[in-house]
Amino acid sequence: MGFKRQYFDTVPGAPQQLTATATRRVRFEEIDMLGIVWHGNYVSYLEDGRIAFGDRYGLSYMNFKGADFAAPIVQMHLDYLAPLRFDETFEVTAILHWTESLRLNFEYRLVRDGALIARGYTVQLLTDLQGRLLLAPPDMVRDFREQWQEGSL
Amino acid sequence: MGFKRQYFDTVPGAPQQLTATATRRVRFEEIDMLGIVWHGNYVSYLEDGRIAFGDRYGLSYMNFKGADFAAPIVQMHLDYLAPLRFDETFEVTAILHWTESLRLNFEYRLVRDGALIARGYTVQLLTDLQGRLLLAPPDMVRDFREQWQEGSL
Amino acid sequence: MGFKRQYFDTVPGAPQQLTATATRRVRFEEIDMLGIVWHGNYVSYLEDGRIAFGDRYGLSYMNFKGADFAAPIVQMHLDYLAPLRFDETFEVTAILHWTESLRLNFEYRLVRDGALIARGYTVQLLTDLQGRLLLAPPDMVRDFREQWQEGSL
Amino acid sequence: MGFKRQYFDTVPGAPQQLTATATRRVRFEEIDMLGIVWHGNYVSYLEDGRIAFGDRYGLSYMNFKGADFAAPIVQMHLDYLAPLRFDETFEVTAILHWTESLRLNFEYRLVRDGALIARGYTVQLLTDLQGRLLLAPPDMVRDFREQWQEGSL
Repeated sequence: MGFKRQYFDTVPGAPQQLTATATRRVRFEEIDMLGIVWHGNYVSYLEDGRIAFGDRYGLSYMNFKGADFAAPIVQMHLDYLAPLRFDETFEVTAILHWTESLRLNFEYRLVRDGALIARGYTVQLLTDLQGRLLLAPPDMVRDFREQWQEGSL
Repeated sequence: MGFKRQYFDTVPGAPQQLTATATRRVRFEEIDMLGIVWHGNYVSYLEDGRIAFGDRYGLSYMNFKGADFAAPIVQMHLDYLAPLRFDETFEVTAILHWTESLRLNFEYRLVRDGALIARGYTVQLLTDLQGRLLLAPPDMVRDFREQWQEGSL
Repeated sequence: MGFKRQYFDTVPGAPQQLTATATRRVRFEEIDMLGIVWHGNYVSYLEDGRIAFGDRYGLSYMNFKGADFAAPIVQMHLDYLAPLRFDETFEVTAILHWTESLRLNFEYRLVRDGALIARGYTVQLLTDLQGRLLLAPPDMVRDFREQWQEGSL
Repeated sequence: MGFKRQYFDTVPGAPQQLTATATRRVRFEEIDMLGIVWHGNYVSYLEDGRIAFGDRYGLSYMNFKGADFAAPIVQMHLDYLAPLRFDETFEVTAILHWTESLRLNFEYRLVRDGALIARGYTVQLLTDLQGRLLLAPPDMVRDFREQWQEGSL
């Protein structure tokens, strides 16, 4: 259960990772009775990173839904390195790692004043709107992957 | 990032794992617009498992605080196997694994109608109420560990 | 903005109010940094009262949805009388008041150890699943109201 | 239970109301299974309005705590006029109304694309950090009220 340096395996010949960053300020209702952010609220911080990513690269829930598929999270992991306190401001960076599989492998880095305070990752599968696993990528995902490989994103 | 069979390393000569189970029913506000529980709400389900554990074995937040220490979560992991829907009832079992280190290694199993629908784990360190790592176990933790080893819990 | 004795007007000839009660225990993540339940979390407590009511009288979200209508909340009010703390257990009673209009007028009473610690109310309108106001009651609501008036619930 | 035009009584000779506005975007986890924001999540929107107010006028939780008092909410009211959907952006304006009593009377207005979509109010009392009602205003509140009356805020 040691601390992993690298969440996802390196894929030979993979295009460079894509990143997007959101800024967030700790809310009053996120603080627990020990005066720090309750660990469960970080899930919403990861969501912010993914939303920023979707805004930047067109990979949003709405785009997914418009294309009749969903991307449910099947794995989530968080490493908490330093506590967050009320009213602190920090940045969440979502980093999409290339994979040959039909999934989205996001890594996250939370940084406050230049220091890494939490890391994590999520894995999303692609399903139709009834929750059945997709066997082939939807057009928008295939296009996205092609542009990513060409370096044109 | 494959699916792990075993979250924690087996410790030779370790006493049997301790378990406690809570029952929970999916709440309206936990459902997202795809009609399933938002993945972030599972963190609260794990908390239910830990609370049931604390009730059974006297390892609760209140007991911790009364003994002037805290047990912040430094690592959390969730594997989502099948979606949960509104009003469904399921069980969360928290399983404490023995470790020689000053930490709490909890595994969690969510079961609905006999089927495993999610698994996960958390790692908690022990700190004083100012957040400094404890070097020696508080009395209540030492006693708990002794009783656990003796099989008298 | 004084403290109201009575949230809803008395309707002459109205059948007796209907009530249902849920029990709840304060969760760790509901506590704020002042050590009391954050006021926003009470909304979930009211929801528990409504769910208990739906269980008892068959007026649930699922029944609504199965009958192709929704009952969105258009007004919510809470009076906080005494703070709630971690791990405390209390009861939420939902009380449905009779009204001639096409709406659900719920009052709520939160009681801990016999003492009233919060009160509130919600008003729900009836709409179709596209959010348009219903002009006539759905069958299940008409039946429910008839049985209520006959005293056969 | 009609729709009130005015939440707080007009105080003769009162100084002009003070206002501050926050912008917010609907988050994925705030949406319920009907595709609209769950009514309970609006409480966090009001909190945003109050935080913006505190930022502008120095009336923040941290300032309160530094001055050894708290301002717990004893009453909350919300009128929902139109639903909010995923990813929509809206503004929350918090409006502080003058009162001779030792309390904070905030009104809130949520506006999307120029249209009012929700209104509400909260009432906060002033207490010491043990929850006992203050009989006289803390210095920072007295100064704030004097500056407000002088029009120098």
